[in-house]
Amino acid sequence: MPKIVDHDERRRTVARVAADLVIEGGVDAVTVRDVAAGAGTSTAIVSHYFRDKRELLRFTFAEAASRARRRVDAVLARDPADVAGLCEALLPLDDERRADWQIWFAFWGQAVADPALGAEQRQRVLDTRAILAAAVGAASPRLTAESADDESRRLLTLITGVAAQAVFDPDDWPPHRQRQLLDGVDGMAGLAAVAEVAGVAGS
Amino acid sequence: MPKIVDHDERRRTVARVAADLVIEGGVDAVTVRDVAAGAGTSTAIVSHYFRDKRELLRFTFAEAASRARRRVDAVLARDPADVAGLCEALLPLDDERRADWQIWFAFWGQAVADPALGAEQRQRVLDTRAILAAAVGAASPRLTAESADDESRRLLTLITGVAAQAVFDPDDWPPHRQRQLLDGVDGMAGLAAVAEVAGVAGS
Repeated sequence: MPKIVDHDERRRTVARVAADLVIEGGVDAVTVRDVAAGAGTSTAIVSHYFRDKRELLRFTFAEAASRARRRVDAVLARDPADVAGLCEALLPLDDERRADWQIWFAFWGQAVADPALGAEQRQRVLDTRAILAAAVGAASPRLTAESADDESRRLLTLITGVAAQAVFDPDDWPPHRQRQLLDGVDGMAGLAAVAEVAGVAGS
Repeated sequence: MPKIVDHDERRRTVARVAADLVIEGGVDAVTVRDVAAGAGTSTAIVSHYFRDKRELLRFTFAEAASRARRRVDAVLARDPADVAGLCEALLPLDDERRADWQIWFAFWGQAVADPALGAEQRQRVLDTRAILAAAVGAASPRLTAESADDESRRLLTLITGVAAQAVFDPDDWPPHRQRQLLDGVDGMAGLAAVAEVAGVAGS
């Protein structure tokens, strides 16, 4: 009797292995053979799911984005106006979030010269900004849509700028410092102070 | 009579060709053969200057950084307190500056998994922040060194965050919008307004 295979789960497993390889050895180090070996499967199976290395990488990048999206959705399910919580979900404050940014930087390196990946990157930025703007609007109902959009632009700019430095120099960017940079955000300064007093900043 | 060869110039020519290849086709597209062809020389000559592709890429990345450094030095030669001018020198406001950021994102993609490149990236961030902090201190002599450092951190965070979005979506980030994000910087808001009125924002 044939085994019932959860195809989505298998694709995700393959993507997780590929993500680890990207972080350890860079995009160049990702080969279908190594990914298959790491996932405990065959190159034929990996090739069945992904036409080529580019498709595999694309799915790997999308998985990192989905993981971030799940963190964001969890914040919004608790409180649709929790702007500080959204920033927390996106900043590289722990190993999981740092790994997501490492994957994204690897993705950017590819997207620079790949129009389709560049378009995906643009869309992801717009989506993230829309989520931030909605939360800003929910937190401050008197703001115009334009002001909420400006604020979301400023927030994502700060988050991205912090991540770009923190990923390569985590010692210089302990969590309280990352939060400090987002000081203007309601709740972020308080969070930084609380985390520092409690010694739970992870630094 | 043997030709007199300017070795530095030749290395820079090779790096320029490699930079164009990175932007057009990504790091994967850079081959010693194509670089040699583009530079009008032989693979033997390229191999003489660069041990392997990694060394060639490393020099290419360093050249993009040097180009930015020359823009920064030109600003400081005119006015060591011109913080807004430094931001202008670094933001992707035209094709040259945008190309530098494209090269850097390609570099980050490599640096994620390469400790030596990661260390270079860390050092470049620290150097750039030191330059910004010195200018901030010169512009506002009453600031403590710590405040000037905090401000330099905030500035580089904003510049990097803007660049990370603007490079992939230049239509969404015309020069006046890039400048707007740095609104708190003395002179940036004025610059944005002037550029907009004069229609010279390049947008």
